[in-house]
Amino acid sequence: MAEAEKIRWGVLGPGNIARKFAEGLKSVPDAELVAVGSRTLANADKFGDEFDVPRRHGSYAELAEDDQVDAIYVATPHPMHKANTMLCLAAGKAVLCEKPFTINAPDAREVIAFARERGVFLMEAMWTRFLPYMVKLRELLAGGAIGPVRMIAADFGFRAGFDPAGRLFDPNLGGGGLLDVGVYPISLASMILGAPAEIASLAQLGPTGVDEQAAFVFKYAGGEMAVLYTAVRTLTPMEAVIMGADGHIRLHSPWWRGTTMTLHPAGAEPEVIELPPEGNGYNYEAAEVGRCLREGAAESPVMGLDETISVMETLDRIRGQWGMTYPME
Amino acid sequence: MAEAEKIRWGVLGPGNIARKFAEGLKSVPDAELVAVGSRTLANADKFGDEFDVPRRHGSYAELAEDDQVDAIYVATPHPMHKANTMLCLAAGKAVLCEKPFTINAPDAREVIAFARERGVFLMEAMWTRFLPYMVKLRELLAGGAIGPVRMIAADFGFRAGFDPAGRLFDPNLGGGGLLDVGVYPISLASMILGAPAEIASLAQLGPTGVDEQAAFVFKYAGGEMAVLYTAVRTLTPMEAVIMGADGHIRLHSPWWRGTTMTLHPAGAEPEVIELPPEGNGYNYEAAEVGRCLREGAAESPVMGLDETISVMETLDRIRGQWGMTYPME
Repeated sequence: MAEAEKIRWGVLGPGNIARKFAEGLKSVPDAELVAVGSRTLANADKFGDEFDVPRRHGSYAELAEDDQVDAIYVATPHPMHKANTMLCLAAGKAVLCEKPFTINAPDAREVIAFARERGVFLMEAMWTRFLPYMVKLRELLAGGAIGPVRMIAADFGFRAGFDPAGRLFDPNLGGGGLLDVGVYPISLASMILGAPAEIASLAQLGPTGVDEQAAFVFKYAGGEMAVLYTAVRTLTPMEAVIMGADGHIRLHSPWWRGTTMTLHPAGAEPEVIELPPEGNGYNYEAAEVGRCLREGAAESPVMGLDETISVMETLDRIRGQWGMTYPME
Repeated sequence: MAEAEKIRWGVLGPGNIARKFAEGLKSVPDAELVAVGSRTLANADKFGDEFDVPRRHGSYAELAEDDQVDAIYVATPHPMHKANTMLCLAAGKAVLCEKPFTINAPDAREVIAFARERGVFLMEAMWTRFLPYMVKLRELLAGGAIGPVRMIAADFGFRAGFDPAGRLFDPNLGGGGLLDVGVYPISLASMILGAPAEIASLAQLGPTGVDEQAAFVFKYAGGEMAVLYTAVRTLTPMEAVIMGADGHIRLHSPWWRGTTMTLHPAGAEPEVIELPPEGNGYNYEAAEVGRCLREGAAESPVMGLDETISVMETLDRIRGQWGMTYPME
């Protein structure tokens, strides 16, 4: 891919999150949104008009086969990620796939093996990880700003009205807090401490059988711990605190789309670090895909596919403790 | 007890926490510190000189039998609470016993049965519960300020230097975070939601076999949850958030000796509520004992003995999950 050429994006599934991505893409100078695919042309046209997208497709397959598209953002509901992503990969398109990456780890492994066999770029759209203040967080931790990390506390929960047929509550759509928003604190803990050695968790399963609120305790090989919780029927503080032997760092609410953290070094004055995103924040994950494509990399070093599998395995272990399965599993 | 007479207090075990209590007692108009008992007269004298206490005893038994004393504050290390409290109860003295009340629930039940048989006043010294802002919290919750409580998050952890012979790390002294400071968030959750139906927890046990950091998830009969953690080798934020269906309340750091909370009603502006204690805060538990004694009550309705047993049972269940026992058990 020539340096001068823009990365040509297509959006698969023109819903709310796709709107945010399309908005974010406007802040990526070397990328452009050229196509959108939906199950109906009417929906594709509606999105296309809204975001001035020239190429509109009334099926996902047409989008996947559009030779004017380099990369596709898969923004459908969770249970469709696997099939949609593989469709695009099969057509040789780079894929940025929304979180949760798939419904479970076996599906994630299958999709990732498929991409690796073909040498096609694939990344989980854990956009939070690419925000400037999250880049800074990794620098601070790597630089020993708070010493070895000992504990992590993080939450992400909101209060939605109960709707048994809605995406958040319908098991057929992969409902529940865990996969929708619980994955954020779990991915944060994974970024910092890797895969947990032990997990203890409990959930309140609602009338439709999916988790309305849940909490997890992770313990790692070195004795480090993470304390995480999530909900779709309870508003939580949406904060994260990383506690080290020599201080702690607070990611201010709402940390998952954060701008500000406070570094509290032990025995020294706290330091407020404000790094708001340019653009709406979704631009950074798109920029990362572009960077990787230009370098010919099939994976991002920041959000690698082995870690995506690991996070999905953690989600599976948690659901296993609750005995919660989805109908399509 | 005549209204005009002051409650005459004795302190059993003149350590750090006894100093705070003695300081607090200065702010209780209808109480006075008249006696101190230690294992050596020298220690009793030292404390007596510091706080101007007239009656000094070189044994706990002498203090218990001092007929100029109405109530005794038991401030020895955890494993001694049971014997010390029963010594005082046997002599007919009202007892305010430091937390953790005992090492385990069987001991708590034994001490409490002993007090109840004798009709002698007994209370756990969970002083946080009597602070003005905690009284206000109970009023707000009872008044429906945030609707039904759905989740509680709370922590209490600090970073001590590792000392295998020190109180915090020595299993013979009931060491570990759980009994020393973990009991605070657990007691808070108990105050609001009662006894958990289910518990999931993990701990990092240090070289001496006691918990250096630990986290607990509680689930209650109505689906409510609590997410709590504690540590003696990691500084934690020391915050508490009570999340309801219609808003949440944040108890600001350090909440266990707190002064300020913020009420966040759903859809309305947050309200900061500042209620600093008069005195050092330890005065309120002493005042509660005095109030009960004047009313002839054998228990406090705010920190009742059945709840003390319930909290000790929760601590036992948690330790059971870790397989952590103390040598004296």
